[in-house]
Amino acid sequence: MARSRLTPEREAELYEAVLDLLREVGYDALTMDAVAARTRSSKATLYRQWGSKPELVAKALRHNKPVSLAEIDTGSLRGDLRAVVERSDACQMEKDSALMRGLAHAVHENPELHEALRELLIGPEMTGLDELLRRAVDRGEVRAGNPALSFVPHMMLGAVVARPLIDDRPVDPEYLLTYLDAVVFPALGV
Amino acid sequence: MARSRLTPEREAELYEAVLDLLREVGYDALTMDAVAARTRSSKATLYRQWGSKPELVAKALRHNKPVSLAEIDTGSLRGDLRAVVERSDACQMEKDSALMRGLAHAVHENPELHEALRELLIGPEMTGLDELLRRAVDRGEVRAGNPALSFVPHMMLGAVVARPLIDDRPVDPEYLLTYLDAVVFPALGV
Repeated sequence: MARSRLTPEREAELYEAVLDLLREVGYDALTMDAVAARTRSSKATLYRQWGSKPELVAKALRHNKPVSLAEIDTGSLRGDLRAVVERSDACQMEKDSALMRGLAHAVHENPELHEALRELLIGPEMTGLDELLRRAVDRGEVRAGNPALSFVPHMMLGAVVARPLIDDRPVDPEYLLTYLDAVVFPALGV
Repeated sequence: MARSRLTPEREAELYEAVLDLLREVGYDALTMDAVAARTRSSKATLYRQWGSKPELVAKALRHNKPVSLAEIDTGSLRGDLRAVVERSDACQMEKDSALMRGLAHAVHENPELHEALRELLIGPEMTGLDELLRRAVDRGEVRAGNPALSFVPHMMLGAVVARPLIDDRPVDPEYLLTYLDAVVFPALGV
């Protein structure tokens, strides 16, 4: 099978290059020619291996799995959410923001890309958040019916997206800690 | 002067067509050829009138002024913010979201476009919100030092951006009213 011709290391290198290009030039300007040039591979190889640009981009997104929130368990919701924010490094946040910008229009047109981006950036974070929030409810820190519980991902994504657009500054952990104290904890009543 | 050759009506029609194209295809794929074809004008006219694509897009953004929040004054912050949300129609929200998606990558590369988009989508809303919030503080509804005061635009933008990405649904006033009750009012302590 053609796919077996690339080593896993070479495949990972290709996916990383695709994501870098996405951040730099956006989806529309990301051509198979540009990928071939950046990765020093032939277009024939790219097409044989991935079939099409959307398929290559979706695979690259799915390959880049974020770290999980599963191991965070400080014993309190305040501690857990602060830990989530503190261990996200500013550089990774800016890289994720650049990916979202580069794909914002394309994902709206292409459901397969949308699903891949959602899984990468949102799915695991949401599953992790759900678990932190469930434990907080079990401990009695947050009332089970608190309507803000289902909006925690919206609050956090909003903080990330709004920072460059409204304040013209990059997201960093210090800003997110301030936002947790000002918005998220009061909304949850903790 | 060349600019005087277009009537204000024709100019408005051109700007509207540029924004429609931006929503449909995004900034990269918006070529002067596409604008010329859509508006049945010559590329020579477009270049003579606007000089370049970024200049044309920035002008189109600046021309499309949103309605102001200045006339909203219901006597309470809850009433004011509900009024902001209720009179935004779902169709306009979707049009603004499509513009943000189409420009997300381009504005990061082009400060002039960033400034034009900020003024269009964020500036007037923020000025209007500041005024509503200042009155709420004057009336004693919100404590002057409440740290959530400076994050109201972030909370609202987050609600708008997160709805399609996280819930895969369009933003509508009903959803925003639920978000106000669950997040914004508790964070502000009202």
